[in-house]
Amino acid sequence: MNEQESKFSRRDFFKGAVASGVAATTVGLMAACSPQAKGKGNDTPLSSTGDIAWDVETDVLVVGFGAAGASAAIEAKRGGAEVTIVETTEAGGGSTVLCGGFIYLGGTPLQEQLGVKDSVEETLKYMTAAAGPYANQEALKIYCENGPDTYQFCIDCGIKFGENLDLNHGVSGRAGIGLAYSGNELQAPYRDIAVPAPRGHSTGDACGKGIFEPMKKTVEAEGIQVVYGANAERLIRDETGRVIGAEVTCDGKQQYFRAAKAVILAGGGFTMNRDMIDANNRFTTPFGGPIGNPNELGTCIKMGQEVGADLFGMSQICYTCFIYGTDTSTAKAILVDKTGRRIISETSYGSWVGEALMANGPEAYLVFDSALKGSFDGSGDSPEFEAGAIAGATEFEAGTITELAEQLGIDPLSLENTVALYNTFAEQGEDGQFGKEPEYLAPIATPPFYARPYGSESAFYTSEGGLKTDVESHVISVSGDVIPGLYAAGRCSSLIYGHYMGSGTSIADCITFGRIAGQNAAAETA
Amino acid sequence: MNEQESKFSRRDFFKGAVASGVAATTVGLMAACSPQAKGKGNDTPLSSTGDIAWDVETDVLVVGFGAAGASAAIEAKRGGAEVTIVETTEAGGGSTVLCGGFIYLGGTPLQEQLGVKDSVEETLKYMTAAAGPYANQEALKIYCENGPDTYQFCIDCGIKFGENLDLNHGVSGRAGIGLAYSGNELQAPYRDIAVPAPRGHSTGDACGKGIFEPMKKTVEAEGIQVVYGANAERLIRDETGRVIGAEVTCDGKQQYFRAAKAVILAGGGFTMNRDMIDANNRFTTPFGGPIGNPNELGTCIKMGQEVGADLFGMSQICYTCFIYGTDTSTAKAILVDKTGRRIISETSYGSWVGEALMANGPEAYLVFDSALKGSFDGSGDSPEFEAGAIAGATEFEAGTITELAEQLGIDPLSLENTVALYNTFAEQGEDGQFGKEPEYLAPIATPPFYARPYGSESAFYTSEGGLKTDVESHVISVSGDVIPGLYAAGRCSSLIYGHYMGSGTSIADCITFGRIAGQNAAAETA
Ligand SMILES: Cc1cc2nc3c(=O)[nH]c(=O)nc-3n(C[C@H](O)[C@H](O)[C@H](O)COP(=O)(O)OP(=O)(O)OC[C@H]3O[C@@H](n4cnc5c(N)ncnc54)[C@H](O)[C@@H]3O)c2cc1C
Ligand SMILES: Cc1cc2nc3c(=O)[nH]c(=O)nc-3n(C[C@H](O)[C@H](O)[C@H](O)COP(=O)(O)OP(=O)(O)OC[C@H]3O[C@@H](n4cnc5c(N)ncnc54)[C@H](O)[C@@H]3O)c2cc1C
Repeated sequence: MNEQESKFSRRDFFKGAVASGVAATTVGLMAACSPQAKGKGNDTPLSSTGDIAWDVETDVLVVGFGAAGASAAIEAKRGGAEVTIVETTEAGGGSTVLCGGFIYLGGTPLQEQLGVKDSVEETLKYMTAAAGPYANQEALKIYCENGPDTYQFCIDCGIKFGENLDLNHGVSGRAGIGLAYSGNELQAPYRDIAVPAPRGHSTGDACGKGIFEPMKKTVEAEGIQVVYGANAERLIRDETGRVIGAEVTCDGKQQYFRAAKAVILAGGGFTMNRDMIDANNRFTTPFGGPIGNPNELGTCIKMGQEVGADLFGMSQICYTCFIYGTDTSTAKAILVDKTGRRIISETSYGSWVGEALMANGPEAYLVFDSALKGSFDGSGDSPEFEAGAIAGATEFEAGTITELAEQLGIDPLSLENTVALYNTFAEQGEDGQFGKEPEYLAPIATPPFYARPYGSESAFYTSEGGLKTDVESHVISVSGDVIPGLYAAGRCSSLIYGHYMGSGTSIADCITFGRIAGQNAAAETA
Repeated sequence: MNEQESKFSRRDFFKGAVASGVAATTVGLMAACSPQAKGKGNDTPLSSTGDIAWDVETDVLVVGFGAAGASAAIEAKRGGAEVTIVETTEAGGGSTVLCGGFIYLGGTPLQEQLGVKDSVEETLKYMTAAAGPYANQEALKIYCENGPDTYQFCIDCGIKFGENLDLNHGVSGRAGIGLAYSGNELQAPYRDIAVPAPRGHSTGDACGKGIFEPMKKTVEAEGIQVVYGANAERLIRDETGRVIGAEVTCDGKQQYFRAAKAVILAGGGFTMNRDMIDANNRFTTPFGGPIGNPNELGTCIKMGQEVGADLFGMSQICYTCFIYGTDTSTAKAILVDKTGRRIISETSYGSWVGEALMANGPEAYLVFDSALKGSFDGSGDSPEFEAGAIAGATEFEAGTITELAEQLGIDPLSLENTVALYNTFAEQGEDGQFGKEPEYLAPIATPPFYARPYGSESAFYTSEGGLKTDVESHVISVSGDVIPGLYAAGRCSSLIYGHYMGSGTSIADCITFGRIAGQNAAAETA
């Protein structure tokens, strides 16, 4: 580090012309420094070209085998590229195979077949309003316009949606469902902004398996190489900064995968990495457990950050909590916080309920009367994360609302006042505060009265943000440029969110932008 | 990039021993590649040692001359280092010189002098509860324990706090204030968690000038070099990954500043960079304008990211909105949202009000009766961001609450119900919902009734998150390691937040961890 070591003047150093002339001859030397830097806890990315003895060479390297990775791989292969997927587990599937089985699409043949009037335009109207003003409008448009084609892609993969229409509020896993309201379409103000339509295309009780297994079969049928037990750990760049491969640990052995065209990151979110959740969580309220697969550790996000990628929407952690289960009548209860006020329309989609709990928590209660008591016990056969807290919670019981309030530590005047107002709304058939659907309005009048704790700790979380990408699924650097040779899709990226709009929007986003990543990666020159 | 270029086997490439042997002779060559990479929009950090013709050489290079940079520079100098500050403007001061003049400390001689009973312990109790469970507990402890010493540092710099005690709610800029409640100390539940004490040490109407000018004088008196009109743009690292300097544009000319010991980033937040705000904002509600200086563009955060630094708390954007101005009686109004419910204790500190508006917005209204009408006009002499929206807003007027509700598009039953309940609380002298202080409870009973729009767009925002640092003010990489030679403090870093606890906590954090950065940087070996 002393002055005598200086061999080049600053002028040489910063002159591009000289620099590139020199670079070609020093490839090996540059690369040699990286492991040293790594040993010192430094994230200098590898810079290398032909000097690595590659273990595997392919055109397009896809990291992660869930919905996004599968969709990307299939399109890249169909685009003429040789494709290799590296997947850390022995079977793939990630959160995709665990999911509720909804894919959110509008203007599809299934909707037409089941007599649902819908269109790309109405879908876009709903999604735009529901996601909120800060979502990427261009990405939302592409998602919606591609909807019918995304549907066809699913059908071509062999995904089978149920052929029944459910006009109630949709929860995942209800046997036989084909098409359901899986978002907030029926709530104020959305029902006035877009014509409500069921857009949650469901694999019924097949859930995530009904999505992932057909995709996996398609990947195999296309002749795409899948390397299981292969954990990608680091991106490799050449001296121009282009991503040219990845360092992958295969059964404990460090291997080098060369991607002549591009690397596509599709390793899913960071739900299971509590440090990352805490670093990005906006709220100071406690919350429940994570919803995700054990490998949702954010490794692809970090790999991107280490090569200078920017992040987007990391704070958009989705907190979910449903007031209805398989039996939706539980939504006739009212949800009140510690001040005794109602905090939301109780039929709202879970991400809105979760948000309301986070903003008004930690304590909240579902309050109802004897007429509803039975319903709560019946909703336990929904997936745990949706109705577990309803079914399993302790119950408070009292002969009057005043006594109930005292048990809950809520000001009795306030709770009485809230119940009285709600009962008036029920009598007039119109919820003047939150516009809950009239069929869920029923007076809370017949003692005994009940309450179940339903505070912010009932809200389960999933990450949504990730690497900043553009609508071509390129990864964008901190300085705002495309990182050459690098794509990302699915939950390790972040494009359309915004508020989480409803069940099925994540998988549909994974497929839409995974496919775009695959198509663009295949079109790169090797 | 073809195979023939390969000069080193993979084994050579990844063997640390070989790597370091090679590195020493290839310094100039490595560095030569970086500008090329930059031209291609890639963020490969500069890697260099003695090959740069440095324009300026110093021990500790401080980027940014606000409270954090000044504190860091003073301590580094006192620790025996040669110190240079680069500051993009011609005078420095940043947001520090614009601020309200509060420094939040507990257990100080001024408190004792003015008869306030307080301690480090009670301060920590309040701050821990107010910041919420996800704040860095170790950092909070250090902040509080250092409080009396931070106070002494300020006094030694020549900062003069007013010597009057204000037992009302503190707003900045109120002439003559020395010590005020500048957070949520008097609110439920905090008043029961920690003995309330006024901890906002104020420079009175001198505001931020009263903080920054004495610091600047101290910097000059210590013989620290300040280069104005010098914008730092990029960190420079040597081949081991250690940060050794920065690329700085001085009056349009690119210059190279060498830091033999360390670089301390102290360039402030990202409040004025709307892209960064949108990428990190958690809410879908609209909000008001930024509160910051024009150079709060997040450049120091980006410089850190480009060398692999991790981020923390970027979503902790503080939305602020006060219901009281110079005249605090305006907090006797009630704040209701579009559902007609009250949403918070109206005497709450502005960051809680802002948060409630963001969670319940966009629309909300201050509702009051003829008894309060005059107060609103009188609060206009507070700084604009605190009371502007109260003073300037359109006013709705009606003979009954029902009519007022109709004008506002609120369900009349709901608003009547809310006002009736509030009036009962006022009569009994206890706010059963939000625990507002009794002296601010007054029935809303004498027509005409009024409402002023006070929705989420009344909330102004400041960034809080930034580079991830440890309690030694080291910058931490994405892989969790200290980045050698790099420190950060103030709003380009993120340590104690959490919910914004009250006026004065930002400057106190800047001083506390700025000083620690300076002390540690001075102790590095050159
Ligand atoms: C219980 C549950 C119900 C849900 N219901 C729905 C629903 O009905 N509809 C909907 O749209 N969304 C739903 N979601 C969300 C949705 O499932 C996920 O957002 C989506 O599946 C993410 O897909 P992905 O391809 O990005 O990642 P994943 O499906 O998680 O796939 C990522 C894969 O990458 C692998 N991997 C990770 N890191 C590495 C690495 N470094 N190297 C190699 N491999 C790696 C993982 O093992 C994994 O197989 C649900 C989620 C859960 C958990
Ligand atoms: C109106 C207002 C009132 C406030 N009231 C209070 C209060 O009463 N108490 C409180 O604690 N907090 C208050 N705050 C917040 C507080 O002022 C800031 O959080 C704090 O001053 C930040 O200090 P800092 O040293 O991190 O950054 P700053 O004070 O903003 O200083 C950063 C400096 O770095 C310079 N800079 C930026 N980038 C570069 C670069 N690349 N190269 C060279 N120079 C660069 C800037 O020009 C600036 O001079 C208030 C803020 C505002 C705007």
